[in-house]
Amino acid sequence: MDKPYVIGIDVGGTNTVVGVVDKRGQILKSGSIKTGKHSQVENYLDELSGLIEDLVTGATVKKEQIKGIGAGTPNGNYFTGSIEFAPNLPWKGVIPFAQLLEDKVGIPVALTNDANAAAIGEMTYGAARGMKDFIVITLGTGVGSGIVVNGQLVYGHDGFAGELGHVIMRRHNGRLCGCGRTGCLEAYTSATGMARTAREYLDLRPEDKTRLRDIPAEDISSKDVFDAAMDGDEMAKEIFKFTGEMLGEAFADFIAFSSPEAIILFGGLSKAGDLIMNPIRTSMEKNLLPIFQNKVKLMFSDLKESDAAVLGASALGWEVKS
Amino acid sequence: MDKPYVIGIDVGGTNTVVGVVDKRGQILKSGSIKTGKHSQVENYLDELSGLIEDLVTGATVKKEQIKGIGAGTPNGNYFTGSIEFAPNLPWKGVIPFAQLLEDKVGIPVALTNDANAAAIGEMTYGAARGMKDFIVITLGTGVGSGIVVNGQLVYGHDGFAGELGHVIMRRHNGRLCGCGRTGCLEAYTSATGMARTAREYLDLRPEDKTRLRDIPAEDISSKDVFDAAMDGDEMAKEIFKFTGEMLGEAFADFIAFSSPEAIILFGGLSKAGDLIMNPIRTSMEKNLLPIFQNKVKLMFSDLKESDAAVLGASALGWEVKS
Repeated sequence: MDKPYVIGIDVGGTNTVVGVVDKRGQILKSGSIKTGKHSQVENYLDELSGLIEDLVTGATVKKEQIKGIGAGTPNGNYFTGSIEFAPNLPWKGVIPFAQLLEDKVGIPVALTNDANAAAIGEMTYGAARGMKDFIVITLGTGVGSGIVVNGQLVYGHDGFAGELGHVIMRRHNGRLCGCGRTGCLEAYTSATGMARTAREYLDLRPEDKTRLRDIPAEDISSKDVFDAAMDGDEMAKEIFKFTGEMLGEAFADFIAFSSPEAIILFGGLSKAGDLIMNPIRTSMEKNLLPIFQNKVKLMFSDLKESDAAVLGASALGWEVKS
Repeated sequence: MDKPYVIGIDVGGTNTVVGVVDKRGQILKSGSIKTGKHSQVENYLDELSGLIEDLVTGATVKKEQIKGIGAGTPNGNYFTGSIEFAPNLPWKGVIPFAQLLEDKVGIPVALTNDANAAAIGEMTYGAARGMKDFIVITLGTGVGSGIVVNGQLVYGHDGFAGELGHVIMRRHNGRLCGCGRTGCLEAYTSATGMARTAREYLDLRPEDKTRLRDIPAEDISSKDVFDAAMDGDEMAKEIFKFTGEMLGEAFADFIAFSSPEAIILFGGLSKAGDLIMNPIRTSMEKNLLPIFQNKVKLMFSDLKESDAAVLGASALGWEVKS
């Protein structure tokens, strides 16, 4: 039977979103459950497979018409199909997620991490259509990456390649990162990293006027910095400049590695538009080896934000072996 | 006709070495000419094609039995077959080397840069046989790299990927690099970078005893540092430690990118054995994200040094389209 549909699952720390997707990247039907509701993964998977059955029925699609299920999960390993030691999920250790779900719903399941799913989504439906070499950088609570070389996702020998949020940008006196090391890109350029930058700036420049000072320091978020910058607040604009400059420095090194046609920004921070893109572009070009200058495209994801994670995961469904 | 032979050409700044190679990586016949003798590339190619004819005859091989010619050259671009703006060669601008040579000898020619040729050589005949994800780092006058992902060389969208000698290791007050930027890995860990480290140490520690002080500072080479370290000279050993530690830091970032099964050291400095490998290993493991610790192999090339460049280039000959 022809199999013109896939299912995408985006497993987030809070919500798990599921969509039934057709070949053109249209989401026919979607729904969600709370990821953290079940402390036992078995119970979670029962609820998840119930949702999948409902959505398939609701989309008036037959189960036999579904090519595969793709899931993007924190710490998802493509090679093993397992979620391995994900700090933000309720289930500890190694969870053979793909196999467990496949056993329940009878459709083959492939799994990878969120950032790799985003890269596959960009290649299949988004800004990277037709490209064979590009990098997706996800800017959110953390900083992730999905790398494509010769038209293929880079998984590495163990499935864990593409941890570009954890290259070292400041080798001495760098900020402590959630990974336990210091100076990682993520510690500066994630949403939480930007909020830390704001607190540092407020401490170091007590005489500078800024409306960020009206917010209790521990409550400042990257959203507050964004709102202030959009209103012309100088310190807030400098925080975006600092963040973008460091991303540009990092991108110049990434380009020396794989010489991609484009670097695509995805996720929360990328909503800041020129506020973040202009300093990235200036800093990246300034830091590039001459042979790479003025030829790497910098772009935002053009997938509709609310759908992007599910679409990205669903694209992996086309690749499953059935 | 069966084509069980290839020809490898290693174009260096001083010598061009040519070898006729069989399927097992045996060099049946080899010879060389001076690269810098001819200011016109046409004259150089006349001499080169003459040498190729002689070697083929000398090896009692028929031209029709040769699958292809592979050349490793400075600034060689695999996609275009050209040598592009190579600073150490007498011919300026863009030289369509592969096409020019193919027109002269009537055998298809493929070309890439020296470090990529080394990586293909390791994959075909050397330490990386059977591996699909690895990185070769060439440590010589400069620092180069050849990266393999999913069993394929990473060329990037323009053929220039793999410039890992030019990732930035010191972002502030870094050493000036030959590329015009500051703080590049190559400025510290190439043979010339090591000699600079020696001169810095001698300046900064005037009271330290070391036999490196017996050599005029401007004449110190990495070989002098190696000889002194082998004799137990403390400062010389520290210079190797400094160099190895920086390589280890860089390797940890490379692993976060492509999660290779192995990193293979190739070229002059790699002859230093444990002197360089021990500090690399310690520093690399210390700087790795936990998920990558204790699983990436660090190895030296096991290709016979004098043959390695020609063998690496020759391996590209198997890939030419004829």
